[in-house]
Amino acid sequence: MTNLHHLAEQAVKSALEMGRTVATAESLTAGMVSAVLADTAGASGMLQGGVVAYQNSVKVDVLGVPAELLAAAGSVDGAVAAAMAAGVRTALRADIGIATTGVAGPEEHDGKAVGTVFVGIATAAGASFVEYGFAGNRAEIRGQACGAALESLIAALSS
Amino acid sequence: MTNLHHLAEQAVKSALEMGRTVATAESLTAGMVSAVLADTAGASGMLQGGVVAYQNSVKVDVLGVPAELLAAAGSVDGAVAAAMAAGVRTALRADIGIATTGVAGPEEHDGKAVGTVFVGIATAAGASFVEYGFAGNRAEIRGQACGAALESLIAALSS
Repeated sequence: MTNLHHLAEQAVKSALEMGRTVATAESLTAGMVSAVLADTAGASGMLQGGVVAYQNSVKVDVLGVPAELLAAAGSVDGAVAAAMAAGVRTALRADIGIATTGVAGPEEHDGKAVGTVFVGIATAAGASFVEYGFAGNRAEIRGQACGAALESLIAALSS
Repeated sequence: MTNLHHLAEQAVKSALEMGRTVATAESLTAGMVSAVLADTAGASGMLQGGVVAYQNSVKVDVLGVPAELLAAAGSVDGAVAAAMAAGVRTALRADIGIATTGVAGPEEHDGKAVGTVFVGIATAAGASFVEYGFAGNRAEIRGQACGAALESLIAALSS
């Protein structure tokens, strides 16, 4: 967790400097990204909150991810990650939305291999995603996904 | 975390046995309750997801907590915790909603002392809350709040 806390400190510091607010939409990390941000001094000045969209119904109902996209692509998909990030940015009225979806294992999910992770990022300029292939057990894959989300957030704050 | 994982295992086991789904609404714990549940084998069969309602705007916009209640009582309040639990139960279409709000410190908030924590619980029968006064640093208070939320969830599942 030391590395995650270090990344969270960088993200909180950058967001405060830039005057930007952040919201999270988490599937496989299930609250870990928002919790590690909230655990950082100053987080209350930049963290709006988040949505843990563990089931697809939450992705559709709360985040506005198109049901047709989930039906066609499955939940572990780059376009889904981008839509989650855009949805939470709008729903929670934040400047930046950051999302995670992926397969922590031990079994593959929706035809995607264990360790497949998509990080979505949404700003006023639009939404995009990055794909990763991580190795490790469930906790290790979740931790790496959390770190990747924080790195994407830091990158978005510096652009 | 060992105790939290043990409580999460009990909660997941009970929910699966009872065929009940669960949604979380977290303020001071900021995703910790949902993350520890998701880290437990079988969680995908009972965890709908959650809302991290770190700022009051999220409590109002996403969870439907009355703005007048927040203005009158502040965010650290039993009725607010109950309304958060009821709101997430409805928004995420779960059988049980569980909520946390409180003061992790280091400074008091909305006139409430550091360590004041309210856990809200909502079922089809209605919404209620429990108040706690915890001691410790930020991480310790958050951990105790997370444990209290899991205990309330286990109690609701056995009633």
